[in-house]
Amino acid sequence: MTRTLIKETPEKIGEEVLLRGWINRCRDHGKIIFVDLRDRTGIIQVVGGQELKDLRPEWVAEIKGQVNLRPEKMINPDLPTGKVELELKEIKILAKAEPLPFDIGTEDLNLELPTLLDFRGLTLRHPKVKAIFKVQEEIIDSFCRTLKSQGFTEFQAPTIVPTATEGGSEIFPIKYFGKTAYLGQSPQLYKQIMVGVYERVFSVARAYRAEPSVTTRHLCEYISLDAEMGFIESYEEIMETVESVFKNFFIDLKEKCPDELALFKTSLPKVGEKIPRIKMREAQEIIFQRTGRDNRREPDLMPDDEKEICKWAEEERGSELVFVTHFPTKKRPFYTYPDPEDPDYTLSFDLIGKGLEWVTGGQRINDPEKLKENIISRGNRLEDFKLYLQAFDYGMPPEGGFALGAERITMMLLGLSNVRQASLFPRDMERIDFRLSDLKEKKPAKQ
Amino acid sequence: MTRTLIKETPEKIGEEVLLRGWINRCRDHGKIIFVDLRDRTGIIQVVGGQELKDLRPEWVAEIKGQVNLRPEKMINPDLPTGKVELELKEIKILAKAEPLPFDIGTEDLNLELPTLLDFRGLTLRHPKVKAIFKVQEEIIDSFCRTLKSQGFTEFQAPTIVPTATEGGSEIFPIKYFGKTAYLGQSPQLYKQIMVGVYERVFSVARAYRAEPSVTTRHLCEYISLDAEMGFIESYEEIMETVESVFKNFFIDLKEKCPDELALFKTSLPKVGEKIPRIKMREAQEIIFQRTGRDNRREPDLMPDDEKEICKWAEEERGSELVFVTHFPTKKRPFYTYPDPEDPDYTLSFDLIGKGLEWVTGGQRINDPEKLKENIISRGNRLEDFKLYLQAFDYGMPPEGGFALGAERITMMLLGLSNVRQASLFPRDMERIDFRLSDLKEKKPAKQ
Repeated sequence: MTRTLIKETPEKIGEEVLLRGWINRCRDHGKIIFVDLRDRTGIIQVVGGQELKDLRPEWVAEIKGQVNLRPEKMINPDLPTGKVELELKEIKILAKAEPLPFDIGTEDLNLELPTLLDFRGLTLRHPKVKAIFKVQEEIIDSFCRTLKSQGFTEFQAPTIVPTATEGGSEIFPIKYFGKTAYLGQSPQLYKQIMVGVYERVFSVARAYRAEPSVTTRHLCEYISLDAEMGFIESYEEIMETVESVFKNFFIDLKEKCPDELALFKTSLPKVGEKIPRIKMREAQEIIFQRTGRDNRREPDLMPDDEKEICKWAEEERGSELVFVTHFPTKKRPFYTYPDPEDPDYTLSFDLIGKGLEWVTGGQRINDPEKLKENIISRGNRLEDFKLYLQAFDYGMPPEGGFALGAERITMMLLGLSNVRQASLFPRDMERIDFRLSDLKEKKPAKQ
Repeated sequence: MTRTLIKETPEKIGEEVLLRGWINRCRDHGKIIFVDLRDRTGIIQVVGGQELKDLRPEWVAEIKGQVNLRPEKMINPDLPTGKVELELKEIKILAKAEPLPFDIGTEDLNLELPTLLDFRGLTLRHPKVKAIFKVQEEIIDSFCRTLKSQGFTEFQAPTIVPTATEGGSEIFPIKYFGKTAYLGQSPQLYKQIMVGVYERVFSVARAYRAEPSVTTRHLCEYISLDAEMGFIESYEEIMETVESVFKNFFIDLKEKCPDELALFKTSLPKVGEKIPRIKMREAQEIIFQRTGRDNRREPDLMPDDEKEICKWAEEERGSELVFVTHFPTKKRPFYTYPDPEDPDYTLSFDLIGKGLEWVTGGQRINDPEKLKENIISRGNRLEDFKLYLQAFDYGMPPEGGFALGAERITMMLLGLSNVRQASLFPRDMERIDFRLSDLKEKKPAKQ
């Protein structure tokens, strides 16, 4: 007898089926015992007698039984299988489970973050936690599909890098055969090299930041969705691409994850016909006009400014996302393209929503001599950029790109309060799987 | 005027178009000069006069011209655009290039591996090198599609791990906020945890091996295609899944990468109706019968045995791939499921082809008590497996899985001689982008 998946049971009324899954909940009514069985496709109510008495949540079982229509008043309209139940014929326990430290059969888990993560092997099974990573899977998939449909090639970015090119303090050193290597802070340099190969490229890359602080927004290891495109006529083309990526996020999530989205009390952002674009200095002026707060000479948007410009975009342009462009040259990386009309500012942008940066991007300098000048003037060494500069020395078209963190986008779209909730196994200063303070140093191999 | 892609030119005969790309080759015939222009979609011949005289390979240009049919005897049947050429009207140089260190316009590059890698920013542009990574992109995509169609969920495996669980010598240590963390040798433990969440999971993961040797088969950083599935009835189901993955590789590559495959003098392996399955001890017996070489008491297949069993599979079963099963318990990791009929052997397998291991997999132990016994008896500490064991303590179905290295599969399918050719930016003992011996230590920040 082959296994039936739980979502298929409503089409098998009157038939005998074999199900496999985890015990989700048990309700002992004396002679009749109800248990909910959960598999990857859904949950079904199983009705039986004393054979079900010893079952406990998270035990793994194989159950044979007959699919019956439930009595009218027992129908559960909230469950896709709410019209049916399984009448138990035979049960086999495949694996037992320890008593649970907390109930995971509730609608919300209501755990403090450290507990949620201390028990990650269990809490990931909660429907609302599982849903986060189904949404994340779809965000990443949608990003890849949108770009492939526009002629982009996917590449695999390396994570071990030879030098600390973006400054030393926020980078993890690796012991590498008696030398020091590092974990890359972004696939930036590699994706630019790859423009020379395939013109348009993207990568689902890993990036690492050794930020010695614990905030709700930063992870030490994260998934960077990176894209780069050559032969652009203007940095505006890059924003067009970002916009298409986000519009497809919303279409794809609505189509493929409606049940997952419904679990969260949030709606996808409105963006209207076109996401508004505004220069940073104009944004500061608008904020000054609206609030009297004068940050017009600040080199970047302050956190309150990011919130205010989002409010403005929503109220005045009907969009919950807004592109802010032309950040000062000094505040952007060495490869950022200066605005020819005002070289103190760059052809760069951030996509901002709900008061936070969602995407960062811009046009890059493709002239190798200017790149070399900038590397040196910022105190770096040309030899550390050898392979990168080579790609420009051998002919690089005008190009640019953008990057977004998969965990941050997941957090923002689902309205989560901490980015760690959007990382399966978040790494931070205090935790890698378990609390680092709990970790005993291993004794040396020789005793 | 919007850009036309080169592959579109045969449909635009008589029209004026704007092309952008790299100068691939120049042929100066005195008054008439021919240059080949290359973009991501193809190559076209441009015909012009002295305006083309100064062009050099890899310069980046924007060219306006008229698409003309070539005279009959000038048609190049090997080129998709071989029937047309572009009559130059106007050219704009977008970027110049240094003189090339070698000709990249030849059919083969014929460079020694160190040179190929020293100039990676340039050599990746060669059609035959580019093709390797188009094939790799399709291998990874095909892997993902096959598994998604079978109900698998994709997850993002972390790369920083808290402890050196698989022994210390081949693992890279990371300085992690005053403590030591490590680069994961495989996503094994995480994919098993994820079976408790989604039953069937896969990951395009990064894995790291600090092998202090330079072979043609090993990389320090590689792409591990990992899958794991719960509720299996037997380890044979896992081999079925592997088989479906490979059959789809062949179908998808033939359909989507015919031009890329044609560049390599290799054909995809024949596998017939079903890939043969044979126990390791039976394989050794067959090898003894065929060659007189008696390795029947060896705990593993020797390299020559792997070659011989592939020969046998091809000659006797018409398959260039073969599953060898039931490796000895002592030679496999602690989580490998022992054969209940003979616990000295395991329900594990390797998929072998062309004398090399392509895939490794098997059923896993899902009883947490047995896992704990094995961890301890192999000299490891339970606390290092805390999160992993938690997933089993809270109910894990019978499960198993498999893994393959994307670079190795690319190498085998294209008949490359060194796995580094199948890694965009290969990392080994001697190289991260450039030769580590060339790397000067950075001066400390304080001078």
